[in-house]
Amino acid sequence: MPAPEGRFGIGVLGRGTVGGAFVALLEERAERITQITGMRPELTGVLSRSEGDFEEILGRSDLIVELIGGIEPAREYALRTVSSGRHLVTANKQLLSQYGEELFEAAREAGVQLRFEGAVAGVVPAIRVIQESLAGARIERVHGIVNGTTNFILTEMAREGLTFEQALGEAQRLGYAEADPSEDVDGRDAAAKMAILARLAFDTPVQIDQVRYEGIEQIKPDDLEYARELGLGLKLIGTAERIDGRLSVRVHPAFLYPGHPLASVNGPFNAVTVESDEITEVTMSGPGAGGPQTATAVLGDVISAMIPPASSVMPIAPLKIAGDVVSAFYLHLEVADRLGVLARVAQVLADHGASVKSVVQKGHRDQARLVMVVHPVLESRFEAAMAEIAELDVLRAPPRAIRVLEEEFV
Amino acid sequence: MPAPEGRFGIGVLGRGTVGGAFVALLEERAERITQITGMRPELTGVLSRSEGDFEEILGRSDLIVELIGGIEPAREYALRTVSSGRHLVTANKQLLSQYGEELFEAAREAGVQLRFEGAVAGVVPAIRVIQESLAGARIERVHGIVNGTTNFILTEMAREGLTFEQALGEAQRLGYAEADPSEDVDGRDAAAKMAILARLAFDTPVQIDQVRYEGIEQIKPDDLEYARELGLGLKLIGTAERIDGRLSVRVHPAFLYPGHPLASVNGPFNAVTVESDEITEVTMSGPGAGGPQTATAVLGDVISAMIPPASSVMPIAPLKIAGDVVSAFYLHLEVADRLGVLARVAQVLADHGASVKSVVQKGHRDQARLVMVVHPVLESRFEAAMAEIAELDVLRAPPRAIRVLEEEFV
Repeated sequence: MPAPEGRFGIGVLGRGTVGGAFVALLEERAERITQITGMRPELTGVLSRSEGDFEEILGRSDLIVELIGGIEPAREYALRTVSSGRHLVTANKQLLSQYGEELFEAAREAGVQLRFEGAVAGVVPAIRVIQESLAGARIERVHGIVNGTTNFILTEMAREGLTFEQALGEAQRLGYAEADPSEDVDGRDAAAKMAILARLAFDTPVQIDQVRYEGIEQIKPDDLEYARELGLGLKLIGTAERIDGRLSVRVHPAFLYPGHPLASVNGPFNAVTVESDEITEVTMSGPGAGGPQTATAVLGDVISAMIPPASSVMPIAPLKIAGDVVSAFYLHLEVADRLGVLARVAQVLADHGASVKSVVQKGHRDQARLVMVVHPVLESRFEAAMAEIAELDVLRAPPRAIRVLEEEFV
Repeated sequence: MPAPEGRFGIGVLGRGTVGGAFVALLEERAERITQITGMRPELTGVLSRSEGDFEEILGRSDLIVELIGGIEPAREYALRTVSSGRHLVTANKQLLSQYGEELFEAAREAGVQLRFEGAVAGVVPAIRVIQESLAGARIERVHGIVNGTTNFILTEMAREGLTFEQALGEAQRLGYAEADPSEDVDGRDAAAKMAILARLAFDTPVQIDQVRYEGIEQIKPDDLEYARELGLGLKLIGTAERIDGRLSVRVHPAFLYPGHPLASVNGPFNAVTVESDEITEVTMSGPGAGGPQTATAVLGDVISAMIPPASSVMPIAPLKIAGDVVSAFYLHLEVADRLGVLARVAQVLADHGASVKSVVQKGHRDQARLVMVVHPVLESRFEAAMAEIAELDVLRAPPRAIRVLEEEFV
């Protein structure tokens, strides 16, 4: 279905959190999308329960974004979209984990694109990386933390010593769990996502009913306390792996050793690790849900469906290259005598607009060391302060400075 | 350049580690590639210093894989490839960070694909994710650990208390550092990679000479010791970010707080974090080098260049769904009296083929708890053991079990 010259019609089904965020993002990024694809994206309509007509929207569209969720009428609309020769982008994990083969077959027959990055792990690019980046690898195993609600709950239980019920309440208060959280906490939501990942990684149709799953309702604060003593972390882990020529897909709580790439994934984040003999492993992590996050994944799919892959680098909309930047610093000083030195150093820093955040002192009189962290300051000013500090007669060695990244993450 | 029906000619320039691994992988995965693309990949020749003729290979090819490295003759071959209407896949970071614009322009004019996932962070899919998955996002910042040699050295210094020189020697012994490691340890290699990532993330041409960089030669064991006291980790961090409408690209050692997504990237691994308002952040990590790893990234590019994006899911080559699997378990028991209980429990486990790896005991007589980790065992056998343990008269509550992921990572 070639688009009319210069225009690409996009119809949106669903007006929920992701639908709203997608419509806003599409408008905000329209110019950029035109640059990338050579076509102007045009919203042809938004279908909600009370407004819009599907056939009318479809008639004006080159691509349909399905964000209704659930099976019907999403399935009917999806099949109608591809059979009429339009591309389909969906974030519907239920539909894909139950009727994926039907949809894949219909899209293949019609020669249209079917993309669904938003269906698994929000903006974490697991689908594209498995399907495209790792198309040349023989994947042996996929591990995923693919449910943000349960990961948040387990993180809170571990950090705060909460019970499951308390942590669930906290998750609900913060919007990380729904009023009825049962599909999240019993593992079924993660099972649907693992069925989709397994299908792609192993070319094997997997229905959600073939995925064994357990949830986290039975986890006790005790388990997390002992885990800490054993040096382990606890996550709800989805696994899809080859075992003796068979495929096992399952979801259950599991302890992880600290070096495991999923061990440091905390709060509502999601992550997927793909292992093969050729690649060792690749891990992707990021927010597993959220309107703008999932909408960004959906928009990435839409842009890919609009063009052959973005293979030649886009024309330029250049920024100027910046010079000086602001950084926090760690500062290491070897001093002859630490009495009074801190005050002098702090004064020099202050003269250049830098202030001390924390100090560690070590040693005594003749071989004292001062290690401090300095609040963010323009690097040129810090360098000037360093030059002055280097001249202080109490220094026994040149001062050493290393930047500190200040960003705080979950 | 349409391929002759059913055949797709691939010429390889360079016979080094990556070139050798690519040729082997291409042969091994030929059938799978034919399934995905509908075309049979055919190696048209491998050019080395002593063997092969570039023009001859080019004449037989639909795509050239450039793995020579350095500027000339790689630049000449690359330009000749695209100007003759062939797709180009390259892993050459020097070429792209110095002559990227020339190549991008030539590829755009010729309407061919230019892909270069292997040029940055090995098999970590940073290029594709920035260019395609996040095409709809307005990226604010990219942070990367894009040099495995320096990350290995810093990890060893932190873990083992080694000096820079000792850790470098260890890296050389293990093949993580070259005999002349200067471009790695002085930050220039990372600077080239950050120039490439910045170009894609911010649509701004960045030459390596516009990247400020520092290396890790000056880092002392002291710095890492104090960092530990301050709760920080030390990495060689590449940054590309918008600052007041300008672009700053730089590479320097930096301390990270433990929650930072790059803080847990250890050993020779690479990782890239992309931040934007819409997505919060997405992080990708994996091996930053290695023949088979980089070859897998290159092959992913080749497959993408062979077809429009792999949008409709591949035909099926299904595996059987597995039932029982092998797992390690954590086992939590509340017992009336722990004397003798451990022996009884261990006996039941042994009867079912399970053996105890470690035990923690807590409390005394009337409220004792036994927490143990059991070596990997078939889950059905462990469940049978659990059922038997649940019947023991000394248990004060049902036993609880949670799986332990045994995979060890760097």
